[in-house]
Order: sequence, then structure tokens, then C-alpha cells
Amino acid sequence: MFTIFFLFALVFSGSHVAVQGYCVADLGAAQTTTGYPCKPTKSVKIEDFSTTLQPQNTNFSKAFNISLSPAFVGQIPGLNGLGFAAAKLDLFAGGIVPLHSHPDASEMLLVTDGKITAGFISPDNTVFVKTITKGDVMVLPQGLLHFQLNSGEGSATAFLAFSSPNPSAQFVDVALFASALNSAFVTKTTYISPAEVKRLKGVFGGPG
Amino acid sequence: MFTIFFLFALVFSGSHVAVQGYCVADLGAAQTTTGYPCKPTKSVKIEDFSTTLQPQNTNFSKAFNISLSPAFVGQIPGLNGLGFAAAKLDLFAGGIVPLHSHPDASEMLLVTDGKITAGFISPDNTVFVKTITKGDVMVLPQGLLHFQLNSGEGSATAFLAFSSPNPSAQFVDVALFASALNSAFVTKTTYISPAEVKRLKGVFGGPG
Amino acid sequence: MFTIFFLFALVFSGSHVAVQGYCVADLGAAQTTTGYPCKPTKSVKIEDFSTTLQPQNTNFSKAFNISLSPAFVGQIPGLNGLGFAAAKLDLFAGGIVPLHSHPDASEMLLVTDGKITAGFISPDNTVFVKTITKGDVMVLPQGLLHFQLNSGEGSATAFLAFSSPNPSAQFVDVALFASALNSAFVTKTTYISPAEVKRLKGVFGGPG
Amino acid sequence: MFTIFFLFALVFSGSHVAVQGYCVADLGAAQTTTGYPCKPTKSVKIEDFSTTLQPQNTNFSKAFNISLSPAFVGQIPGLNGLGFAAAKLDLFAGGIVPLHSHPDASEMLLVTDGKITAGFISPDNTVFVKTITKGDVMVLPQGLLHFQLNSGEGSATAFLAFSSPNPSAQFVDVALFASALNSAFVTKTTYISPAEVKRLKGVFGGPG
Amino acid sequence: MFTIFFLFALVFSGSHVAVQGYCVADLGAAQTTTGYPCKPTKSVKIEDFSTTLQPQNTNFSKAFNISLSPAFVGQIPGLNGLGFAAAKLDLFAGGIVPLHSHPDASEMLLVTDGKITAGFISPDNTVFVKTITKGDVMVLPQGLLHFQLNSGEGSATAFLAFSSPNPSAQFVDVALFASALNSAFVTKTTYISPAEVKRLKGVFGGPG
Amino acid sequence: MFTIFFLFALVFSGSHVAVQGYCVADLGAAQTTTGYPCKPTKSVKIEDFSTTLQPQNTNFSKAFNISLSPAFVGQIPGLNGLGFAAAKLDLFAGGIVPLHSHPDASEMLLVTDGKITAGFISPDNTVFVKTITKGDVMVLPQGLLHFQLNSGEGSATAFLAFSSPNPSAQFVDVALFASALNSAFVTKTTYISPAEVKRLKGVFGGPG
Repeated sequence: MFTIFFLFALVFSGSHVAVQGYCVADLGAAQTTTGYPCKPTKSVKIEDFSTTLQPQNTNFSKAFNISLSPAFVGQIPGLNGLGFAAAKLDLFAGGIVPLHSHPDASEMLLVTDGKITAGFISPDNTVFVKTITKGDVMVLPQGLLHFQLNSGEGSATAFLAFSSPNPSAQFVDVALFASALNSAFVTKTTYISPAEVKRLKGVFGGPG
Repeated sequence: MFTIFFLFALVFSGSHVAVQGYCVADLGAAQTTTGYPCKPTKSVKIEDFSTTLQPQNTNFSKAFNISLSPAFVGQIPGLNGLGFAAAKLDLFAGGIVPLHSHPDASEMLLVTDGKITAGFISPDNTVFVKTITKGDVMVLPQGLLHFQLNSGEGSATAFLAFSSPNPSAQFVDVALFASALNSAFVTKTTYISPAEVKRLKGVFGGPG
Repeated sequence: MFTIFFLFALVFSGSHVAVQGYCVADLGAAQTTTGYPCKPTKSVKIEDFSTTLQPQNTNFSKAFNISLSPAFVGQIPGLNGLGFAAAKLDLFAGGIVPLHSHPDASEMLLVTDGKITAGFISPDNTVFVKTITKGDVMVLPQGLLHFQLNSGEGSATAFLAFSSPNPSAQFVDVALFASALNSAFVTKTTYISPAEVKRLKGVFGGPG
Repeated sequence: MFTIFFLFALVFSGSHVAVQGYCVADLGAAQTTTGYPCKPTKSVKIEDFSTTLQPQNTNFSKAFNISLSPAFVGQIPGLNGLGFAAAKLDLFAGGIVPLHSHPDASEMLLVTDGKITAGFISPDNTVFVKTITKGDVMVLPQGLLHFQLNSGEGSATAFLAFSSPNPSAQFVDVALFASALNSAFVTKTTYISPAEVKRLKGVFGGPG
Repeated sequence: MFTIFFLFALVFSGSHVAVQGYCVADLGAAQTTTGYPCKPTKSVKIEDFSTTLQPQNTNFSKAFNISLSPAFVGQIPGLNGLGFAAAKLDLFAGGIVPLHSHPDASEMLLVTDGKITAGFISPDNTVFVKTITKGDVMVLPQGLLHFQLNSGEGSATAFLAFSSPNPSAQFVDVALFASALNSAFVTKTTYISPAEVKRLKGVFGGPG
Repeated sequence: MFTIFFLFALVFSGSHVAVQGYCVADLGAAQTTTGYPCKPTKSVKIEDFSTTLQPQNTNFSKAFNISLSPAFVGQIPGLNGLGFAAAKLDLFAGGIVPLHSHPDASEMLLVTDGKITAGFISPDNTVFVKTITKGDVMVLPQGLLHFQLNSGEGSATAFLAFSSPNPSAQFVDVALFASALNSAFVTKTTYISPAEVKRLKGVFGGPG
């Protein structure tokens, strides 16, 4: 009965065009505006569709006492073109994810352990802040400034979902105080005092 | 300094047009092809952006021994237009999510407890099956037939992410054996024997 | 008056960027998430925008007594990026297109000869079935299980339109009984009896 | 076994949100930028997904000796949001579809009878013209000027597919010579002589 | 010759569906995720497609010494669904557009008078700053923090284009120091000292 | 404090995947249906995001007495994938932009000097014409025939915005009278008299 399958394979592949219902990223090729070119169908394997979130001490930030383990297109090439991704976030005691935004993705937070206070500010300047615990979910819309704090005693853990297979992030402090942005520009465009800018450039390592 | 804020509120709202960076669903209004109309900005509150995943015995299916608690636009109106959603899936001992597809969403599975065997079949008829445990992630691309089984001893739990704020699902058995689809059509279009169709219609409750 | 044309060619091509209002597929290059890279403008010719639907005996399936001739991007490279495609479907006496779905495309059926019974099942389990004849049109929405049967005496013919230049298809029987999917998984996730699974694996050629 | 179906209906509908995998147009409601609002699920019926192409003498144009029968969202409300539509075109002896473009849709032409010469001009001013007969298919990309002529002896018929459920059309002659556009503007912006503009305004019925 | 026009109007409007090639915003109706519902075709007039940028002293911000006059969907309802908008920006002597981002739009700056220093920071922390004058154009990608300064002697003027008909904006200072966001949260998530936060809350008018 | 930055760079880049919040065009690579592949992040520089509109005598058309200077993706590679572009249009005394359409972009016109009469015709054959001066803005929706005339005494200048980073244009006269389109086809599909077609072919340089 091989011929039955052959018929549909032939017809729905347009004779010599690969049709597979997904487009597994060829991570070595140049990106386009919509993701990566597809790997050849023949080299696609189950590992392209799965990954293991790494142990807590990977990607650990001593300064913020947090750890983030991504399941983005770089870890799961099969996410290419599918429009979403995930990650695991650990906030150890006092851990903070500082003020930031995702220019190209909305975010969901699903708490599995501990107590997290999360918040975002809307363009019409309304503040949306909530303390959430195990089983709670919160949404942080695309492009808006937001933060997460461990507001409990011990560690807190959450799964994150993003509406992009390859979300980027912009942290306000990193952009202002770790970048090469001239201190005079920082002061002029944020009204933060020159002394405070100098102090924060020191903390975040940016040149004067 | 109220005037500063007033300027930007005025200008970036185009004088008399609400601009808020999100579109919280007015769930009582008729849907459009891209989601729900937006609630008025003034009535948006933090509850529109969060929910609590329900306890395990909610939405419990005795037949399949599973429970699913959604965080879709119906639970979180702020997901409207953001392109993704989430859910919590419990598979109790021997629990099964039968063969189905999501016509309008891809799915990610993040295991938090237990052992789950998940699989999908591609249009070129390759089978992608994997047994995953705590910390593992697997992707199930849009529109493709897939399933999940509890392949461990006790219960298993996973968080699900979907690439739609309001994913639909089509279960093969429900479509064939619980619907009003004439048994003769079922046999003709699936080649399952009349006797087996009759048996399954009995199991799933569809009319003969 | 060559200079007039030269002006607009120059200006609207952004000096050194090809602008042609279409993107003819370079079928030999790797696909991206949105189709194929474009052929160089200079090598585009009328043949890239047209094809001839092949005679009935091409892509003939003896088992189902049907024949399908596609006009997809593989046959018409000019369809690349345009969002639709077409095909010609012949159902000879008793011909059947078994239960299947298109993960990435909706379908329209325009009957030109004979009598066809087509149906689909919705996610809320409503059955939409109709017998249509010459001049009738029917829509089958994306991702939903559907089928077509020749319900007349002689042959039946229909033109198909798809909302993708390169639609894929997933046939339930092929996915379950012609693939390498383990029989135990088939039974567990479909509740079809082991004996019937074995029989159908025999019919469709899948390994035990 | 009603409870099985109930579970999935409940869960995948997000408790109180209609999820049906399609959005049948409520044609009486105001359009949005992406189509019509959806009819309530309960009032959707098989007629929303099908239509009959009307007899040849409907929508007959004596002047051009052609007849067009649409299967757009107005005829098939179930096409709403699905991104494509179809139509039947009859060109009687000498019939002509004059120079026009579709601002929001590409077009495919599938000839079922007779001989049609179709052509389009690209932005880089290449002419793509071909005479096609039964079984031939031709693509006319979005927004580009194109035409169809009956170049055979008797009548010719083609099915058309469009990449929009509700394509619009702009005929050059209608826009210039049947509209209220001032003759001076027509001459200035097309360089057609005042006398010829006057003659054509007479033919197409536009005010001087 | 009225019948010619009637034919095409009838056919391409799908008999009873308005097709006009645009969707002029009904600004009084509730927004959807993709813009406003369309006004009835009959009430559309030339004023829906045009506006006059207001004199310099409208929307004047004394604090920043700038003035912004939008041509967004609120001013030009015909922009609805078209994906872009424009504005006129005046920076008087020493004028500053403080650090901000547009969550849903990229921006272009076309200088017509004076000297403007504009900059943005990328997610990988590269600083892109340039001083531009009459005839210069600069792009500021969606969601990234950016600013504009009058770096010349007198006034400076620029036209702005946005890749959304209704762009929103989030100013870092307004979000942090004019909103109700608790000072403790501001300090914790930005590392700006409590004293400086207090000072800036005073400047921008936010509650302690 | 380098480690802080390192954490986020690492995590949000998915370990080995470049994430930069933009996709600067590699203009030497083949286009895809959605623009150009991205340049490597390391080679991106401020010049990729800016350009200078060229002096008036560049791209000057003697025949129409107009000059157009684009800021499209060819001039600003950073526009790739951002969905918009701009240009500067000079209409000298009596200058005319003849009847044309943009198959893939809407256009906005912002007048900075002089007096311009602009107009478009809708698919339902309504004429929208307006004379606009300094500070006025007008929208010309995608795919619709439109024109601009200098209706003042001296020169007129406008900035243009387009809803595509690489808009194409189709001029009716160029398509009909400068292309290789056979005169017989022109007459048959436009009803312009053979004599007038011959005259215009002479003016625009097309072969008989």
C-alpha cells in the first residue's frame, strides 16, 4: 500500500517542494525579518523540537540573584516561525528582575513556587502591580516597562511564555549605565542628576 | 508638573483616540476575525491581566483521567490580541490526552512533575515521539495530530503554552464518534470497519 | 522618452534594490518561514506565472480512485508570497478523499462535473455535510478534519483553491496506519481496538 | 459518555468564550480592517459555507460581453477571515475584461473552456502576456494592471481565485471616464488628448 | 453607459457587501485589536483623508520646550488599517524629547530645519547616536529606548513617520516619576537612590 | 559589573542566536517575500539607520518637471522589516506626478512648501481631490490610482511616507505606452483610439 502514501506525499509536496508543516531553524544561516531559513526536512529530528531547561546555577546573575533558562529558538530550532517561546525563571532570596521591556514580545508569568511581585506601567501611566503565588498567572503586554521581585522568604520560580520564538529585552539600567551612552545625554534625556548618573555608571560598568 | 504628562497623553492619544498599548477583551461583544473588541480604557484593571489556575479537580475528565485548567482570553481578557495563552495540564495515573490537533495554534509542553510521553506526526509522515520529565520542554507544531500520555507511575503535570490567545482543539475520536457524523461516512473516509465504528460510537456517545 | 521611464525605475527601485511587485520563488534555495527567496528579476519569465494542470492519470491513486493535479508554488513559482494556490481534483467512480486536514490552509471546492459529498466537523463538534454539483462552491476552514466523496454515478471533477501557496495535508489514516507510530500508542490515543489497528496497519502498510 | 465531550468543549472554549475555528461573517454588522464580526456560533449553518455560482446571464455586461459570478464573503459568509475567495468568469464571443487592478488581492485564472489571452505589466515595465486554454492556470499578482480577452471563436470560461475574501477592483477606464474626475485632471495626469478624453467620457458616461 | 459601472460595482461588491479599498475609522465605535470599525462608505468624504498640522504653540510643553502635532488616525480617520502615521515635531531652543519608546511602532525622523541629535540603544547595548540637519533622515526601531535633542542654536523642526496609524509612547521618567508606582519599587528595580527618586517624583509630580 | 550585562546578553540571545531588535538589510543577498536577510550584528553601524535626502537635481525628470529623493531600504538598510519608508518630492513649476498606484503601499503627503493638488479614485468610483499647502497632510490608500500636481506659482515640496520599506509604483502611461504591450491590446483593453495610442507610444517611447 506504499502507493497511497506516495500519492499524497507527491501531490502535497508540489512535486519537488518540501512541505512539512513546520520550518526548523537552520541556526547557522543568516536570519531574515521573520526568523531563520528552514533546515532540510531530511535532517530534522526529535531533538529539534525539545530541550531541557538548565539547572538553576546556569546563567546565574550574582548582582540580581536570579537565574534564567531559555527555551527559545536557539535551544529549540523547531520554534522557528511558530510565534512563541518559553523560559524558566528562578528568583533566589531577594532576587530582582530590574525594569525592562521586550520590544518584540508580550510575556506571561506562571508561578510554580514562592511569591513574586510583578508590575507594568501602561502608556496612559496606569500602574498594574500584583503579588502572585503558586498557580497564579500574569500577563505583561509587549513593549511596556515591567519588573519582577521575589517578595517572599525563600526562592521563587516561574515559567515564562513569550509571544516570539526569539524575544529580545532592553533593561533600562543596562541601556543607560552599562552602555557607551554619554553621561551628558543620560542626564539631559532622563533628568537624573549628574552625580547619580556617575554613581550608576560605576555600578553598571559604563564608561563615564 | 501635571502639564508634562498632559502633553504626552494628549499628543500620543491623537487627541480623542484611546491609546493604551493593549486591547483588553470585551468578552460580551461579538468576536472579530482577530479577537474581541477592546474594553474602554477606564474600566481596565489589574484583574484583566491575571488569573489563578484552578485546582486539579476542576474540568476533570474521568474517562481520560486528566484535568486541564486554561489561562486563555476567557480567563485573562488582557491576552486579547497578544497572540499567546497558557494552561496547566494534570495527567493522573494512566491519564491520556487522546489524538487531537489545534487548527489555529502551536503548543509547548513544560513538564513540572512526573513522566509524559508526547508525540506528533508530520505531514510527510515522520513520527516524533519523546518521553520527557521535569524540566523538559517539547513543541507540537500548529495543525498537526499529537497526543500526550502519562508514562510514569504517579501523576504528571505540565504547563502548556499556545500561540493563540484562544486556541481551539479538534479530537479525532470526538469528531468521528461523538458527533452526528453518519457511521457510513466514518467508515468510508477512515476505512475503520463498521463494527469498530459502532463500538466507538457507543463509547463516545455519538448517534449510530 | 527613455528618460521618463528611467527616472521612475531608478527612484522606485531605491537606486540599487530590485522592486518588482512580486517575489518569484527560487525553488532551489532553502525555504524560510514565509516561503522561498526571490529569483533575480532578470530571470523571471511568463512561465513562472503559469502552468498546465496535468492529465487525469497523473498522480492517480488506485486505492482511492482519485487524481489530484496541483498548481502550487512548486508548479507556479510566481505564487510565492501571494498567499493562495489551486488544484484540480478528479474523483472517478466511487472515488474518496479520506479524512484529512490542512494545517496551514483553508480550502474551497468548485464543482465542474458530477456530484460530490463534502463535509467537515467543527471544534464544537457540529457536522457540516453537503452534496454539491456543477456550479456549487463549498468552503472547508483551516485545520479542520474534512473529506470528499464521489456520490454520483460517473466521474466528478472540482477545482480547489487553498489559502496558502504551498498547502500541506495530514490524512488521519496515513498518520496512524502508514507511519511508524507504535500500534500501542495508536490504540491508547484513539481507543481503536488492537485488532482493528493491526488490520488497518496492514491495509495502509505501516509497521506493526 | 457525554462528559468526555463536555470536558473539551468546556476547557477549550475558555469557559465562556466561543471557539469554533472559523468566524462566519455577520454581514449586517460594520466591517473592521480585517473583515466582519462573527455571527454567534449557534446560528451558523451549512449554508454559510456554500453557494451556487449564478447562471451566465446574471451580472451580464452588454458592453464588454462578459459575465461574472462571485463566491466572495457576501455570498459565502464563512469565508470571513480565511484570506481567499473565488468566482466564475464567462467571456462570450469577443468578450473583454478591460485593464484593471485589485488593490488588495492577487488573482488566479483557471480556464475550463475556450481560449483566453491574459496579461499583466510589472512595475519594472515587463509585459507578461499568454494565451491559455482548458486546463491552463495563470497568476496575476496583487495591485498590478492586467486584462483578459476572449481570443477564441466561441465563449470562454474560467474560474478565478483571489487572495482576499472580499477583493476590490479598480478599472482604469471607469476611474478616469465614468467618475467625476475633471477632464483637465485626466489630460494632465495621463497625457491623453482632451478630444480623446471627451470621447471616452462620452463612452463611459462620466461628466465632462 | 451607466450599466458598465453598475456591473462592476455590483460584482465586486459581492452584491450586498461594501468594498471600498479602505476602512475609514468610525472613531466613536469600540476599537478592536487591529484598529477601528469602518464608517459606512456613504459617509466617507475627502476630510477623512486629510488634516492640517497644527500651529507650533498647540500641544506645547513648557518643561521640555517642544511641540508635537500628530497626523494619527484620530486626526485622519482614513489611516485606519493602513499601518502608518505622521507628525510634526518642533524643538525650540534647548528642546528635548526625553528618553522613551514606542511599544507598537518604529519611527523615522526627517529634519526640515535646525540641528537635532537623536539616538537609540539596541538590546545588545550598542549606542546609535547622530546629529542630523536639514534633509537628513534617521530610523528608530520599534520598542527601543530613544531620544531627540535640539543641538543647534535656534529652533529645529522634523517630520516624523510611524509604522502604526495610532502609535503609543512610553516615557521612562513619566512611567517612573509621574505614575503611582511606589518609590520603593522604583529604587529596587532601577537602583536609582531613594533620594534621587524622591527628587524626580517632585519634578514629575508623582506621589511619594 | 560586566557580568550583569553578560547575563542578559547571554540569556536573551538564546545562547548562540543573534537578537538585536532589528534586521538591517544585507542588500547583496537575495530578497525573500518579507524583505532582505539580516546583516551580521557586528557589522551594523549608525549609517545603516540614516541617510541624507539628495539635492533637488538628482533623479530629475525633465518631462514631468519633478524630482524624487527616496529614503527606502536601498538608502537606509535599517528599514528592512520595519514596514515603512519616506521620500522627498519636489514639483517645479507645472510639475506633475502622473496617474499611478503603489501595489504594495499606502502613501502620505506632507506639504512643506507651495501648493499641491492631489487626488485618488476609489473602487466605488468616488473622486477624492484636494488642494493642499504648507502643513497639510493627505493620505492615498494602497493600490488606488492617484496623482499630484503643482497647482501653485513656484515650486512645491512635500515629504512622502509609505507603508512599506520598499514600495513599488505602477504608472498607467508607462505601463501602457512605454512598455512592449502590443498597441492592439492597449486599444482593446482601454478603448483609447488606435491613433491616440500611437501618439502616446511616440511620447512615452514604447514600440508600436
